[in-house]
Amino acid sequence: MMVPARMDFVNITSDVEEALADSGIQEGLCLINAMHITASVFINDDESGLKHDYKRWLEQLAPHEPVSGYRHNMTGEDNGDAHHKRQIMGREVVVAVTKGRLHFGPWEQIFYGEFDGMRKKRVLIKIIGE
Amino acid sequence: MMVPARMDFVNITSDVEEALADSGIQEGLCLINAMHITASVFINDDESGLKHDYKRWLEQLAPHEPVSGYRHNMTGEDNGDAHHKRQIMGREVVVAVTKGRLHFGPWEQIFYGEFDGMRKKRVLIKIIGE
Amino acid sequence: MMVPARMDFVNITSDVEEALADSGIQEGLCLINAMHITASVFINDDESGLKHDYKRWLEQLAPHEPVSGYRHNMTGEDNGDAHHKRQIMGREVVVAVTKGRLHFGPWEQIFYGEFDGMRKKRVLIKIIGE
Repeated sequence: MMVPARMDFVNITSDVEEALADSGIQEGLCLINAMHITASVFINDDESGLKHDYKRWLEQLAPHEPVSGYRHNMTGEDNGDAHHKRQIMGREVVVAVTKGRLHFGPWEQIFYGEFDGMRKKRVLIKIIGE
Repeated sequence: MMVPARMDFVNITSDVEEALADSGIQEGLCLINAMHITASVFINDDESGLKHDYKRWLEQLAPHEPVSGYRHNMTGEDNGDAHHKRQIMGREVVVAVTKGRLHFGPWEQIFYGEFDGMRKKRVLIKIIGE
Repeated sequence: MMVPARMDFVNITSDVEEALADSGIQEGLCLINAMHITASVFINDDESGLKHDYKRWLEQLAPHEPVSGYRHNMTGEDNGDAHHKRQIMGREVVVAVTKGRLHFGPWEQIFYGEFDGMRKKRVLIKIIGE
């Protein structure tokens, strides 16, 4: 996927549900992880105000500017902040699979969190069980 | 469970041990996750001073007040902060099962972390293996 | 392992790869977790500037000094900060195993994060699958 902003959150729940249906697995665990170290996969609410709040909060905890504030950026990158934001939001989630469905609470939705966008990135879905 | 405070931590290790014993599984993985997006499951030390420190620290990183500081609260909720605290402490833990026991280090204990209490909530325990 | 500094990050990817090869498992999940509650296992980039940035950032979010700032330290410990830093960086990672290999994105490396060093500590690697 390619997110057309530096930071944004994309609901990938239906992609995971599709992969689970394809697998035919009824009971097990489903791992969903970002394959990139400036991105996250996490579970929370699909509510636009919350997404706005997360962006502001993460920018406060690990600001993009000044780019020179991160020694990592001396490599020529400008994504030092993204490596920090990703640690707050997490790399992965593991979801129970019960009776062939993602075993979710009432509001759980799976998000891909991008912190260094406008680059092609991938998410890995691995399902084990029977 | 219903936690009688906005924010608190409940040691659920013995509940997980019981579920593991019931499962009969000897070797595998045990996933324990909050089913609610304003709560956490995490592993740390069962020490009252530490719980006090965590509450103060989380309140500093994502204060409850002012409620109007979170756009999420325009939905009529007042738990914007709880969605942020939960990201710091995490949704889930995965614990190894070895010889029928939770494979723990010396001080590891499993906690349910509540950040928007006085509501009924659930934790999911899923164990796979043989 | 014993890390000769209060805080540092050790790349343990090759240890995990070795354990995976020994297991003979081709498809499954690999859990890697710190067995201590003042340490982390996480996945990020093996870049020295980034490690420097993480140390400075974690020290800012949960400073070691003043030691009296943590009620946990009234137990006689001085590692209150370490319990907080560990929550930011996480206890564990779960990595997919595909065709007998850790199924990684281009820059993913597994790190042990020590926040209360100069003590002997252990990491647990548990691999399930077939």
